[in-house]
Amino acid sequence: MIDDMKNCFVEEGERIDDIGFGDLKLIQKPEEFCYGVDAVILADFAARHKKGPAKTIVDLGTGTGVIPLILSHKTDAETIVGVELQEASWKRACRNSEMNNLTERVSFINGDVSHVLEWGDNLKGLADVVVCNPPYFIRGGGLINDASAKTIARHETTAGLKEFLECAKYLLRNKGDLFMVHRPSRLADLCCYGRELGLEPKEMRFVSPNRDSAPNILLIHFIKGGGKELRFLDPLYVYEVDGGYTEELLKAYK
Amino acid sequence: MIDDMKNCFVEEGERIDDIGFGDLKLIQKPEEFCYGVDAVILADFAARHKKGPAKTIVDLGTGTGVIPLILSHKTDAETIVGVELQEASWKRACRNSEMNNLTERVSFINGDVSHVLEWGDNLKGLADVVVCNPPYFIRGGGLINDASAKTIARHETTAGLKEFLECAKYLLRNKGDLFMVHRPSRLADLCCYGRELGLEPKEMRFVSPNRDSAPNILLIHFIKGGGKELRFLDPLYVYEVDGGYTEELLKAYK
Repeated sequence: MIDDMKNCFVEEGERIDDIGFGDLKLIQKPEEFCYGVDAVILADFAARHKKGPAKTIVDLGTGTGVIPLILSHKTDAETIVGVELQEASWKRACRNSEMNNLTERVSFINGDVSHVLEWGDNLKGLADVVVCNPPYFIRGGGLINDASAKTIARHETTAGLKEFLECAKYLLRNKGDLFMVHRPSRLADLCCYGRELGLEPKEMRFVSPNRDSAPNILLIHFIKGGGKELRFLDPLYVYEVDGGYTEELLKAYK
Repeated sequence: MIDDMKNCFVEEGERIDDIGFGDLKLIQKPEEFCYGVDAVILADFAARHKKGPAKTIVDLGTGTGVIPLILSHKTDAETIVGVELQEASWKRACRNSEMNNLTERVSFINGDVSHVLEWGDNLKGLADVVVCNPPYFIRGGGLINDASAKTIARHETTAGLKEFLECAKYLLRNKGDLFMVHRPSRLADLCCYGRELGLEPKEMRFVSPNRDSAPNILLIHFIKGGGKELRFLDPLYVYEVDGGYTEELLKAYK
């Protein structure tokens, strides 16, 4: 079956991965970007912690669309929209929706989160849930010598954290949920920028490689117009001491 | 020896505890307040993480003065000042300094952090380090039926978190260190209020009862005028699975 698909959907340098979550397949181009554990735990966090049913979900900086695909499996959302700046990734995301027969629920916009008004569809205040796995590396925080797909996916070359939060605020209905994954080093920025915009941090979960390490990933749940009360969830450890994945992590892959 | 001391220093309802840290003794009045593990790990955090030698240290909301006493053992500070609102606790703190022959280095002010200008001594910009274990319970966050010593020590009856931070800012020299212990649920407030005042969160350490629990204590290190870069330290667990204290925790008691 994958061989047949290959003929229809795959272009040079791409591959199709069997990613689970029902029976989803994903086209990726390894030299540009492959999704990581961050995307999977973010999708799982959003599916489990959203307040009530969500009709409309938007994923900002969707890449090849892995989060919308996983959320089509983990939620009953009728409309899941991924937004991606890079044209090649966006086209791959569209093919991923088509290949998985999800075009009725999962669609993609080729747009910049800094220019939400130019997207065409006016989504203002329509999203019940926004998810976002933004570029981790801060603008000006490291040397950037190229404008490759990998660089744009990982660095704040165009939109920074503030722009992602502003865009989420614009899209969300009042009391809507924003789920984000980021580095713990940005925690103060996440809290302060979020609160300035009326996106109140409500839940945090730290993710560590193992039980003896400081967290290297932060999951954060904001509520638009939420009250000031922050809850910490039990930490998530990725690996057991013997090197295998923890049971808790494996749950996110189901 | 404790018996002799008892005659000189102890009043009704009080007791003297042998608290370690060299050979320190502490007068406490159990029906009012006894220090906890929070005070010990905060003092240890401050002693280990201050940037360079500290000549002057101020402890805000010092209670019976346990943190200044511990810091007299763990640092070479020449001047350690504890500030306490409640007169009875302040008097006990003064007797604690006297009983331990520390009056040359450790002194106490009976004052309110909201009224730092009324303290008499002008300490503006003189502190290298400020430490603070403020009341954990938010103003208006729970029913408060009395004005007992215990209530004032635990609830934001007079000064709130913002007032403690404003006071710390006033006392600290530029690039001075502020070490605080609080509940993780106040993390967003700590980051946002701190940054507003130019006290940048630089280091955080979460403390959990054990390896499987969410953190219930947060240690936070601000630097006055510090740059935006937050570092997470390895988590601290209080208890082993078998119920004993962890080796890491016991280090704080040395």
